[in-house]
Amino acid sequence: MRAVRRVIIGRPLTTAEGSHERLSKVKALAVFSSDALSSVAYASQEALVILALAGAAALSLVWPISLGVAVLLAIVVASYRQTVAAYPGGGGAYIVAKDNLGTTPSLIAAASLLIAYVLTVAVSVSAATAAITSALPSTFDYRVWISIGAIVLVMLANLRGISESGTIFAIPTYAFILCMFTLIALGLLASLDILIEANPPRYELEDASRDLSIVLVLRAFAAGGAALTGVEAISDGVPAFKEPSAKNAAQTLVWMGLLLGTMFLGISFLARHFHLVPSEEETIVSQLARTLAGESAFYYIVQGFTALILVLAANTAFADFPRLSSFLARDRFLPHQFLFRGDRLAFNTGIIALGVLSILLVIGFDANVTGLIPLYAVGVFASFTFSEAGMTRRWLHTEPSRQRTLGLLLNGVGAVATGIVLIIVAVTRFLDGAWIILVVVPIIILLLRGIHNHYRDVATQLRMTAGDLRSLARPPQRDIAVVVPVDSLNRASARAIEFARSISSDVTAVHIAADAEDGAELQRSWSEAGVKVPLVIIESPYRSLIGPLIAYLEQRRAERGNEFINVVLPEFVPAHLGEHVLHNQSALRLKAALLFQPGIVVTDVPYHLQD
Amino acid sequence: MRAVRRVIIGRPLTTAEGSHERLSKVKALAVFSSDALSSVAYASQEALVILALAGAAALSLVWPISLGVAVLLAIVVASYRQTVAAYPGGGGAYIVAKDNLGTTPSLIAAASLLIAYVLTVAVSVSAATAAITSALPSTFDYRVWISIGAIVLVMLANLRGISESGTIFAIPTYAFILCMFTLIALGLLASLDILIEANPPRYELEDASRDLSIVLVLRAFAAGGAALTGVEAISDGVPAFKEPSAKNAAQTLVWMGLLLGTMFLGISFLARHFHLVPSEEETIVSQLARTLAGESAFYYIVQGFTALILVLAANTAFADFPRLSSFLARDRFLPHQFLFRGDRLAFNTGIIALGVLSILLVIGFDANVTGLIPLYAVGVFASFTFSEAGMTRRWLHTEPSRQRTLGLLLNGVGAVATGIVLIIVAVTRFLDGAWIILVVVPIIILLLRGIHNHYRDVATQLRMTAGDLRSLARPPQRDIAVVVPVDSLNRASARAIEFARSISSDVTAVHIAADAEDGAELQRSWSEAGVKVPLVIIESPYRSLIGPLIAYLEQRRAERGNEFINVVLPEFVPAHLGEHVLHNQSALRLKAALLFQPGIVVTDVPYHLQD
Repeated sequence: MRAVRRVIIGRPLTTAEGSHERLSKVKALAVFSSDALSSVAYASQEALVILALAGAAALSLVWPISLGVAVLLAIVVASYRQTVAAYPGGGGAYIVAKDNLGTTPSLIAAASLLIAYVLTVAVSVSAATAAITSALPSTFDYRVWISIGAIVLVMLANLRGISESGTIFAIPTYAFILCMFTLIALGLLASLDILIEANPPRYELEDASRDLSIVLVLRAFAAGGAALTGVEAISDGVPAFKEPSAKNAAQTLVWMGLLLGTMFLGISFLARHFHLVPSEEETIVSQLARTLAGESAFYYIVQGFTALILVLAANTAFADFPRLSSFLARDRFLPHQFLFRGDRLAFNTGIIALGVLSILLVIGFDANVTGLIPLYAVGVFASFTFSEAGMTRRWLHTEPSRQRTLGLLLNGVGAVATGIVLIIVAVTRFLDGAWIILVVVPIIILLLRGIHNHYRDVATQLRMTAGDLRSLARPPQRDIAVVVPVDSLNRASARAIEFARSISSDVTAVHIAADAEDGAELQRSWSEAGVKVPLVIIESPYRSLIGPLIAYLEQRRAERGNEFINVVLPEFVPAHLGEHVLHNQSALRLKAALLFQPGIVVTDVPYHLQD
Repeated sequence: MRAVRRVIIGRPLTTAEGSHERLSKVKALAVFSSDALSSVAYASQEALVILALAGAAALSLVWPISLGVAVLLAIVVASYRQTVAAYPGGGGAYIVAKDNLGTTPSLIAAASLLIAYVLTVAVSVSAATAAITSALPSTFDYRVWISIGAIVLVMLANLRGISESGTIFAIPTYAFILCMFTLIALGLLASLDILIEANPPRYELEDASRDLSIVLVLRAFAAGGAALTGVEAISDGVPAFKEPSAKNAAQTLVWMGLLLGTMFLGISFLARHFHLVPSEEETIVSQLARTLAGESAFYYIVQGFTALILVLAANTAFADFPRLSSFLARDRFLPHQFLFRGDRLAFNTGIIALGVLSILLVIGFDANVTGLIPLYAVGVFASFTFSEAGMTRRWLHTEPSRQRTLGLLLNGVGAVATGIVLIIVAVTRFLDGAWIILVVVPIIILLLRGIHNHYRDVATQLRMTAGDLRSLARPPQRDIAVVVPVDSLNRASARAIEFARSISSDVTAVHIAADAEDGAELQRSWSEAGVKVPLVIIESPYRSLIGPLIAYLEQRRAERGNEFINVVLPEFVPAHLGEHVLHNQSALRLKAALLFQPGIVVTDVPYHLQD
């Protein structure tokens, strides 16, 4: 078991081994941008899917909508540059909202982010699977299994801990960027009829089911907004940059925005130019690659690196979700377990929680990106809005300066713009699934608050009082009452009695007898053995073990002025785990009942059975 | 929770309330014969189902086959009269085989019986459901659910305990007998064209898939042998009869045989006379009732009482299976739990085990009687054979006498006859499902033996030696080492330390520190508070709690010559059960690890959190 664990998870790491390498801008772009950049694999397509509802003519609207999304991207990038400058220690939406807006907004931001991270995994892995099934249509029926397999792989990799991975990330990210730019270049050549001949595949478009309306255009815009997912990642990761980290991070953010914007616009433009039609069987990127490169090696390389960067994007959520959960656990909004680091310094509980939740989503939505996007967009834009609003509030509380004016302007515009998009997404995609998030976020907040209140109450109850300190300094009370329930005189009960005698001179053995005869027999062998501990026989006409014993203990406690009573139980420890069911059933039930009795302390004296 | 339990299960009963009413022969017939008598509801039909494989002409063979089954019945009844006389305390196959044949045959008998009881429930309830769906065809699709519901009802009734039920049983049993004899009388009148006109329903027969062969006839005979299921019940229940109980039981057994034989032959004869054809949709009894009474009130009364007596038959298994399991548990072949009587004196573990197993069978076989019968017949005839063989062996060991000669003859013939039928069933119905039992019985026997060996080994290990007795008489060693792991100085850890000080003067608090700073801080507040117990700080660079603590305990034990070390752990007891997950995670993992450490005794000092 332990050996298997070592192979899969790796050797333990000391806490000191946790400090990372500082990343150069080139590496940092790879580490923090896979989520953002990979969204070009589905963003244009999702806008097209909505437009297709209004028929083939409507598809040409993808170009103006994409320009709108690009403007929004520019706003968000500009305002996040302010966040990077203001939070050189890392400024996720939860931290920014907590600092500047208070607890409830910070919890809304946290809940949105947790959801967004789960959806990052579900959407990215589903999109990766779509890239694979587009290239290899025979795998389409296995898409849910492929997605689950990918999530499990990424989860295991993260349980190993993959902080050493700057270089590993760089190759697929830059290869993907190269693929996309090559594709766009080929597309531009083909659109000018230079060198390249375009052979777009022709998918059938279903008949228009909707009229083209403002609402439909807004829905398509909301769907295309998926291009912005992941943009916030750099603001979270400022401390990982080489010094001057804030400046380097800000520059990397701008580069990331430029690359993302260019690729997204390029794909939207070419999809429109070649009249590509969205299809369940083949992604738009795959169609575009086939249009320009046929079924060449290049086509498969494009699909491969698209799948790879999408898996990397899912991987970033496996760093972000556990980190955010550990922040929430540190602030006592989640159970302590989220704060424990495993052998490999990873937050195992958070990693496993994220894996399980995203697998459930993939199953529930049949690994369908289009079904997941409305949920994703609500989570992402909600966290954007709270982060930007927090930054705006922060500027309001600083001294007037040129920087303040610029910050107020950029973050204010950012907050308003992302807030409006949030409303657009929530309203126009309400029935497409956005409602789920609007229901789940309040539930998560209630849960976080309930956990917090519980821990707060406990901390209050546990605080040492002057009286507690006095009693710790006082000489101890000795010879507390010890009670040993016995079923017969055997080595296990003898061992328990021996232990009991070593901690007190007031030891009583108690036997619950089903009938008088049974009791008399044990009493007899007790005297014969000359056991130096009195045996009390309690008859139980209802054959209940627990009721009579508790009644006896309560009586003893009342006699001795409610001090501790120590119940010492022999516990069999079988050589094989499966044999447990053959023993200790009565002891287990007794322990469960005694747990809730005041003043009763239970001691297990193990008796190890040999093989 | 407790209130709901009281309503469903009833008030607790004392052990003394367990002595039953002694039953008159009339009541005893009702209580012990429902299983046997109810088999006329399906036995003729099952023979017909096999014969139908060879086409319509073959159906007329049901009459000679039924005569053969009736002869077998007479042999079994005659030989069981000997068992009743020899075992006035109750002589089930397990007891008879254990007494006369030894352990392995008794375990084969026990395993066969356990299986037969599970199948009694599954078959009887499925047949009851068939009686209902025959009368109300629209319920056919819900047959599995109806069967599960009936099993759950009977199970709950048995958890309440229904020993007071002699009278309750009499009504449906005698009503069923009356219905069957009325039906047979009507049938005989109709066959003579007196008063009654017969209108048999016409079901289509599938084309013959087999030739009529000896093997097919033997298969049909094996299927019709299902009429004998339940005949052994009276021999189990002799002590429940009024005195002279053995004589009364023997007379009741003969009456039961006569009633059963007459009804079975009557139904087989009429089914053949009216050329009834077995059908999945309607049972033979239902067809017969409709043939003779149309869709009159009488028809529905017949179906109702048929269903009712079948449910009663299932009910008898809920007394037999738990009783047999308690015998096996007493002999240490099953876990102790099967020996515990619940509040209402019922063997709850056995009742629940039977309920769950029979529900699984009903689901697995789609509540189909024909599918279950081959399994049932193997179990029943195996237990017959071992019981009869045991009786034969018993006679061989007695002094020669007239009784011995008669006994040897009757039980010898019984053993040979049921043994031959067992082979016929096992061979001719092997592929129909008999193989399952032939696989399961050895597995059960291995399980029973494994449990037995384990308990025997444990008993040997637990036996007190002279040295053990000496150490119990010796003055106790005092001031054993007590170790209190603490995470911080709070009321819960203070309480644990207070307890520790009350049992020993050698108390050490231990803190596992993630880093030096954390440890130094606790050491500081420890000195400030003036705690009278030394605090040891252990740094754990790998953040592991358990490893360093166990290493420390091992070192302490080695220093003190391997005596007990008592680890005293503060345990949080939350006001609400669901809050458990928020606490004690580290303590739980620690306890699990310490359980397997030799010489370590663990004490939980509960700290009850307020609401």
